[in-house]
Amino acid sequence: MTSIAVIGAGVVGSSWALVFARAGLDVVVHDPDPAAAGRVAAFAAANAGADGDGVLSRIRTAPSLEEALAGADYVQESAPERLEIKKALYRRLDAAAGPDTILASSTSGLPASAFTEGLAGNRRCLVVHPINPPHLVPLVEIVPAPWTAPEVVERAGAVMRSVGQSPIELRREIAGFVVNRLQSALLGEAFRLVEDGICSADEVDRAVSDGLGLRWFFMGPFQTIDLNAANGIAEYCRNLGPMYFDLAREQADPRPWSPALVAEIERQLRGTVSEEALPERRAWRDRYLAALKAVKAAPHD
Amino acid sequence: MTSIAVIGAGVVGSSWALVFARAGLDVVVHDPDPAAAGRVAAFAAANAGADGDGVLSRIRTAPSLEEALAGADYVQESAPERLEIKKALYRRLDAAAGPDTILASSTSGLPASAFTEGLAGNRRCLVVHPINPPHLVPLVEIVPAPWTAPEVVERAGAVMRSVGQSPIELRREIAGFVVNRLQSALLGEAFRLVEDGICSADEVDRAVSDGLGLRWFFMGPFQTIDLNAANGIAEYCRNLGPMYFDLAREQADPRPWSPALVAEIERQLRGTVSEEALPERRAWRDRYLAALKAVKAAPHD
Repeated sequence: MTSIAVIGAGVVGSSWALVFARAGLDVVVHDPDPAAAGRVAAFAAANAGADGDGVLSRIRTAPSLEEALAGADYVQESAPERLEIKKALYRRLDAAAGPDTILASSTSGLPASAFTEGLAGNRRCLVVHPINPPHLVPLVEIVPAPWTAPEVVERAGAVMRSVGQSPIELRREIAGFVVNRLQSALLGEAFRLVEDGICSADEVDRAVSDGLGLRWFFMGPFQTIDLNAANGIAEYCRNLGPMYFDLAREQADPRPWSPALVAEIERQLRGTVSEEALPERRAWRDRYLAALKAVKAAPHD
Repeated sequence: MTSIAVIGAGVVGSSWALVFARAGLDVVVHDPDPAAAGRVAAFAAANAGADGDGVLSRIRTAPSLEEALAGADYVQESAPERLEIKKALYRRLDAAAGPDTILASSTSGLPASAFTEGLAGNRRCLVVHPINPPHLVPLVEIVPAPWTAPEVVERAGAVMRSVGQSPIELRREIAGFVVNRLQSALLGEAFRLVEDGICSADEVDRAVSDGLGLRWFFMGPFQTIDLNAANGIAEYCRNLGPMYFDLAREQADPRPWSPALVAEIERQLRGTVSEEALPERRAWRDRYLAALKAVKAAPHD
């Protein structure tokens, strides 16, 4: 039985508490702001579906970091994304946690090597980066520092699979990890198409949400092209590799997103969703993602 | 009432015939191979859901190109992707079609300017490129040649919307159009991540199908990041633009997909789906896409 400590009770930490508790694990939450920690259980219970009471019964808060860590096998840290905060926090976490306790950071941008160097127990430190919110999106990126022990990577992956997440294990640290590198590639071309006057922001969005995204919902980019030639991916690449290489050369002009371009895209987006409507739009996104979880779980055979 | 001619009765033409006939339009199909043309109605009826008989009643075949075009307001051409075939075909189509008939090509790679230059009626020629198969994926890319009349672009868009497709209108011809440019960007990074040993092909696929693709199913890339900062896309770009620009510079090394890399990815894919299983996997994909059509149509409010 794995016992979990969730450190940091913002949007990400709250979602993590739900992920662990709905899977039947005991969760102790700590946040420097006691009010924030207190809201986590309510959030998790409200979003747990039919098992709200069960989830609520498995989450408790701890007044101090040290108390949260007592007995924890796995710590999911979701503190603010500032290097000095992480550095100070990992010194405390490493001192307070048992020697075999995994210390996993939700950071999306900082490699674990940047805030665990020199720690006595840094072999049990690594990044376990969710796609927000993790209770609705299963993918997590496991990114070891150079000094992270392989068995720690393995155990973190096992914990994630045991709570229904879909972990990928990066072999080494790389800027942007995998998910933001893929998103970066798509965003770069999206901005380029609007900047070059090829089509509107809405049209780029629909090229994905009414087109490519329908397949990417259940197949990745390799699986997609594997089905787009009679004999699979090798045939596809023989036929279309040169065309894609030509495109890649055209796309190899990295451009900053200029304030004027961003303002123009923002103006177009605000025509559909006003700034005041963004919170409700986020709630709509989360309802949609919750409905999609059931679609993913259904058989399609 | 729009009357449709579908020229070319392969996989793409068959799906197009269904798109038009299920929307209540009369469709005449022609293919140089009469057997192929004959199979279109059966395909469309079998994939029409409850209205198979109605769809069947609206599709007929014509023994010649000229007979198929008699009375057609809109021609959707899905001939093989070879320039000489398209050039010869458009000479015949332009000669046989009434002066206001739209001649729309399903080509994914050839701009209309490459096969309609010099035609007397080339102002009514353009590309209307589907994402295959169009009866399951609504996006179409409308790409005018330099000489295509604006009212032809507008009418083609109206025809597409009237049959339930989601058209985007490119302002001018560009290699790869929009969809394959976006796919190119994502694929380039996908191949790079595997080539550099960061993770496996399956892990890249899951980064999309268990992660990014869940949002891209119903929101495009701009809509996605617009919700990822409290005050919308401008704030997101202020905070993360420099990080993405750094990633874009790292990603600006266009690489051909080497045969060795492709073979390694193919080896990994074949561990899950054998080459013999690809046709059944394609059928599975289409069943999944059909189920997703209903999910897209459902309200999520």
